[in-house]
Formats: sequence, C-alpha cells, structure tokens
Amino acid sequence: MPRTIDHDERRQRIGEAVWRLVLREGVGTVSLRTVAAEADLVLGSLRHSFPTKAELLAFAMRLAHERAAARISRHAAIRDPRRRAVAALRELLPLDDERTVEMRVHLALMAEGPRHEELTTLADTAHDAIGELCRRLLTDLRDAGLVAPQRHLGRETTALHALVDGLALHAMRDPGRRRAATRALDDHLDALAGPPPGRP
Amino acid sequence: MPRTIDHDERRQRIGEAVWRLVLREGVGTVSLRTVAAEADLVLGSLRHSFPTKAELLAFAMRLAHERAAARISRHAAIRDPRRRAVAALRELLPLDDERTVEMRVHLALMAEGPRHEELTTLADTAHDAIGELCRRLLTDLRDAGLVAPQRHLGRETTALHALVDGLALHAMRDPGRRRAATRALDDHLDALAGPPPGRP
Repeated sequence: MPRTIDHDERRQRIGEAVWRLVLREGVGTVSLRTVAAEADLVLGSLRHSFPTKAELLAFAMRLAHERAAARISRHAAIRDPRRRAVAALRELLPLDDERTVEMRVHLALMAEGPRHEELTTLADTAHDAIGELCRRLLTDLRDAGLVAPQRHLGRETTALHALVDGLALHAMRDPGRRRAATRALDDHLDALAGPPPGRP
Repeated sequence: MPRTIDHDERRQRIGEAVWRLVLREGVGTVSLRTVAAEADLVLGSLRHSFPTKAELLAFAMRLAHERAAARISRHAAIRDPRRRAVAALRELLPLDDERTVEMRVHLALMAEGPRHEELTTLADTAHDAIGELCRRLLTDLRDAGLVAPQRHLGRETTALHALVDGLALHAMRDPGRRRAATRALDDHLDALAGPPPGRP
C-alpha cells in the first residue's frame, strides 16, 4: 500500500512543519498559509489534508504523543521488569533533542487549551495514558517482587506519575539536570522494595 | 507609618485586580486601562504606581510568590520537623482556593515568559527558592533522624522538589486529586527513613 504510506509520511511532514513554527515563532504564528510555506506545499494541497488551523494544531500535538508512545511500546519487549520500567519512563524525560522537542511542542500547544478545546482533550488523554503506563509498570515490578507488598498500587501510581512529570519539567528548564532526573527515577524505583505505608 | 501601609495595600489591591483579569480573561487582556478599570482607579493614579504593563505583570507574579512565601515562613515556628515539613510543602499544593489562584496566576504569567523576560527571571527565582526550601526541610529531617544516613541530600532534594511540583500540577488539573497529593507527600517523607542508595 505505497499510497497510504506516502499519505502518512506527508501528514508527518506537515506535523513537523507545525512543530518548527511553534518552537521558532510561537503558536500564534501558525496558520494554513504559514504552515504551507514551512512545509513547502501549495495552500490548496495543505487544505485538502487539514481544512482548519484547529485540525493542524491537534494533529501536531497528536504526532508528538504518538512518537513518544511508539518508542515506549518498543520497550515492552524488554523482559526484565526493572529495565523495562526504566526504559519506558525515560522516554517521558527530555533526555535528548527528540524528546525535548516533543515536550516543548506539547507544552506550547497545551497552553492554547483555552482557545482550542481539542488540545486540552488530547493533553488529558496523554496524561491519563501516562498514569496507566505508570500503573502497569508498577504492577509488573510488584509481580516480580520489586515492590514491597504493603505498598498501595494506586498511591504509588500517583507518586510515580507526579515524580516523572516534575522531573521532566525541571530537566526542561535546565538540561544540566538530565542526569539528576534519571538518578532520581532510579532511586525512586529502588525505594519501592522497602517500607510505607505506616511509618517505618 | 500609616502612609506606607496604605501604599502597600493599594499595590496589593492592584495586583489582585491583575490576577482577576488574568484568570477571567487571559493575560492578553491586561493593560493599564483594563487594570485601572478592574481596580476602580483612575488611569493616571495607576500609572503613578506602575508606569508599564511589564511592571504590572511582574508585580502580579511577585505578589503570588510573596503570599506563598509568607505562609511558608509562618510554619517555621512549628517545632516538630516532620510536621513543619508537611505544613510547608502543603503550601505548594493547590489544596484550597487561595493556593489554587496563586498557582493559576503563576502558570499563566509564566507562559508569557517569551514576551516578558522579567517573568521568566521571577519564575526561576521562585523555582530556586522552592529547591532551597526542600533542601532545608530535608536537612532538618535528617538531623532529627528521620532520613536514613545513606540517603544523599542533593538527590533527595531533586526528588522531593520534582514530586511536589508534579503533584501540584496534577491537583491543578483535577481538584479531586488533592487528597491523593497530600497522601503521596506523606508516603514520600515516610519512606525517607529507609533504604537507597544501592538496591535495598
């Protein structure tokens, strides 16, 4: 099905053109006209794929989420649950340019939520998916004996999800914090084998 | 010094008028004219205190930070280090309307960073102050024997700061997560008495 592949590649190219505009000049400059120019397409051709600016922005955000999700799902093949958890969670930290760009795009588009409801819905869906990922990874770690049985899975999911999001934001502010972020993640997973709940 | 107090109260009233505009209609609607109307002041009088929009925005952000810092510093009188840490850290979570408003203002103004450099500087200063607060609270907990000696203070500071910021953001999205956030914070402090570094 070469036509489907071409179609998909073309949409991704358009999505990346939106990313570049957002990162270089701000969401405010995104329009069918500026994106067509950035993607080197004629306006009518772009409009055929994305009739409105809202659809362009939503696709650009979805593309960022899909790229991260694809990398995470590839780690599902790692058999050791601890290594699998670390690999998956590191995809949520801005440890290289690819992940940093995706996160900057996500944050910039999320800030448009009040004007574009669809973006808030997409951000909520991604948020919930990350929560679910945390819960699944913790379940696997517990089944492998790497989480103390007295630990409450729901509470640990809350904490892990918040920790990863907080570490990601801090590493975004300061790329010098990338190593500290991965270390904090490792420490957190180490600590799961011990105490709470109830003071130790 | 009643004149100084009046002066200060007047500035706070203006700052709160900026907050209301930001939360109700977005940062884009803030101008000397709209703020004067919101604060029920004549334009010339407002301009006397805040000659530019940039100064208004910076003051509004600083006011949010100062309110939180004032509440946190009042908890310094709590003698028990664990209760002191919990009280201080909870000031950084949106657990009531007051804290929620401050955080929404902070986030909305932070998003203006690219247009107003001063806001980024203020946000960075607040970020560093929270990091320092975490370090100080952890030092006190360690001195009271509530942090295992093998735990590394710098790494624990990274983790606690990220966890608190992540929990705050999640509770902002969904006020139903407030209780889960305070519980996750308690669990995190409990766990400090045990393991890492090195797998347990």
